[in-house]
Amino acid sequence: KEKGESVSNETCLSVAGGPVAVPTTEQRYKTYMAPGSSSEKKTDDGHASKENFIHLCNPHLEKMKEDILYHFALGTGTHDFPTLFGDVKFVCVGGSPSRMKAFIAYIAEELGLGSPGCDYPNICAGTDRYAMYKVGPVLSVSHGMGIPSISIMLHELIKLLYHAKCSDITIIRIGTSGGIGLEPGSVVITRQSVDATFKPQLEQVVLGKTVIRSTNLDEQLAKELMQCSKEIGQFNTVIGNTMCTLDFYEGQGRLDGAICLYDEEEKLQYLKNAYESGVRNIEMESSVFAAMCNLSGVKAAVVCVTLLNRLEGDQITSSHDVLVEYQQRPQKLVGYFIKKSLGKV
Amino acid sequence: KEKGESVSNETCLSVAGGPVAVPTTEQRYKTYMAPGSSSEKKTDDGHASKENFIHLCNPHLEKMKEDILYHFALGTGTHDFPTLFGDVKFVCVGGSPSRMKAFIAYIAEELGLGSPGCDYPNICAGTDRYAMYKVGPVLSVSHGMGIPSISIMLHELIKLLYHAKCSDITIIRIGTSGGIGLEPGSVVITRQSVDATFKPQLEQVVLGKTVIRSTNLDEQLAKELMQCSKEIGQFNTVIGNTMCTLDFYEGQGRLDGAICLYDEEEKLQYLKNAYESGVRNIEMESSVFAAMCNLSGVKAAVVCVTLLNRLEGDQITSSHDVLVEYQQRPQKLVGYFIKKSLGKV
Repeated sequence: KEKGESVSNETCLSVAGGPVAVPTTEQRYKTYMAPGSSSEKKTDDGHASKENFIHLCNPHLEKMKEDILYHFALGTGTHDFPTLFGDVKFVCVGGSPSRMKAFIAYIAEELGLGSPGCDYPNICAGTDRYAMYKVGPVLSVSHGMGIPSISIMLHELIKLLYHAKCSDITIIRIGTSGGIGLEPGSVVITRQSVDATFKPQLEQVVLGKTVIRSTNLDEQLAKELMQCSKEIGQFNTVIGNTMCTLDFYEGQGRLDGAICLYDEEEKLQYLKNAYESGVRNIEMESSVFAAMCNLSGVKAAVVCVTLLNRLEGDQITSSHDVLVEYQQRPQKLVGYFIKKSLGKV
Repeated sequence: KEKGESVSNETCLSVAGGPVAVPTTEQRYKTYMAPGSSSEKKTDDGHASKENFIHLCNPHLEKMKEDILYHFALGTGTHDFPTLFGDVKFVCVGGSPSRMKAFIAYIAEELGLGSPGCDYPNICAGTDRYAMYKVGPVLSVSHGMGIPSISIMLHELIKLLYHAKCSDITIIRIGTSGGIGLEPGSVVITRQSVDATFKPQLEQVVLGKTVIRSTNLDEQLAKELMQCSKEIGQFNTVIGNTMCTLDFYEGQGRLDGAICLYDEEEKLQYLKNAYESGVRNIEMESSVFAAMCNLSGVKAAVVCVTLLNRLEGDQITSSHDVLVEYQQRPQKLVGYFIKKSLGKV
């Protein structure tokens, strides 16, 4: 295996945001709900903003007559993507299908676009791989657990947004995680997603060769989300690094898996090293999420609640009701952010 | 990152089958349905067989008062595992929850343990991470997509079987895959699970260090399954190597993902190299499945149908009905194997 051999033509990285001053999400979207949009928009604040389309890092797709998004059970030959999804501006993704269904009902009510008790159909009803819901400019999609599962979903989601000719997309992962040195229930907005050796990178194997990709996330978006949390003022929120692992048990230093060949001292030393390097929580999807959004030129953020403090244990022992309330916190924060971005706060 | 540094005390590997001649699955299980089992059983053929319990490679678990299997929504403090699961002998796992539900209905009918149209409750109804169904000695569990997702499930499944004091477990993954050089619809029984560089190993990161684990599967079980396929005689089945990747698009050399920075020639060369090394299909779970079953001393096999021939394309274009029939083939094969093992053929 050729370690560190990087694919030389990954020029797509250059599209992931430039050094120029960009308008805030609020400035960008405030007028979204108003009719009559053009490709050169002026916001309330007089900022001229050029629409930012999805950057597809794949020249082969243009040559395809039809594109079947197999794991969504959707295809360009059978579905009119611009009509179905063209108005999407915010995409929220999370592991659990039922949580993403709950989110769409929540955001619909928050934006005044739904009625209580209204049922939202699963757009991916033709498969049980992922679930997808939509209301107004918000798409909510489940991604299962782990890097491979979210990566399949993101490949097809990015193509969906591209085929639908969407622009100015903000995509946020709302999830659960294990915290390090934080009171359970705290929310972490990810500064950088780091790997199990605390490096802000993702190793992928492409045609048998290892490729290293950057896992940076949008700094301004993280700050805007932090500001939203301050305005809500209901739970502890921090900006910190998020460690993304390939395994929940051994990969995160747990002592309670079916396999564990290290002792408690080694585990705690590892978690303390993680904390010292800036890691505040651990989950299993953020690195490939950041890497793929980077390559596709999409603004992205990761907002996860911590279900426990890993310095104090491995098992999630809080009551069902407490966990349910914790899991609503990222939804609440991102819901508020979307409302504010649309000028509805 | 210390590459190739192996955790030195992985002695559990020694439990994964010995060089001694073992009875076939049929010899072992034939009398299972008969009452009065003892820990030193005699089969019809006069083989004395010692019960083979789950080998738990984790000394910490013994010290825990309660074990919560969070992603199953089950716990030793709230559920009586020996009563609920003590009679399990066969565990079938697969990615899709609806497919695993269909399998339990199918096997129930095959074993004469259910009635047509009977509904089987989801044992993991308290969560939407995984689905689990049981009928008689057969447990059917979904695992989602990718190594991390199946690994969480397997940690909790192995602990479940251990807590339930199960013995003589055979666990089979029934799944879908992309074939190489095979007619679509062919079934591949995995000889060895190999990584994206065609090596029969799994790299895992434990406490930040890379550990290499063996991904061998039970040879005798693979042969028995092959014999079953011959007896059924309804579809093409081969024994071959299975490549296990972390990504469906770039990781498998597809040209139709959101990101693709290589050309068709490079892709085909990679797939041809895979074929020459013995790879006949590609999926995303077999390596960690083999590694964890090895470490836990559980007989394991992987039986996947191929939905397309990757030398001829990347998109799964067969009609829904054809794909449904393909997906039933591993179920049919494993269903027949279980029936035969229980002396019911």
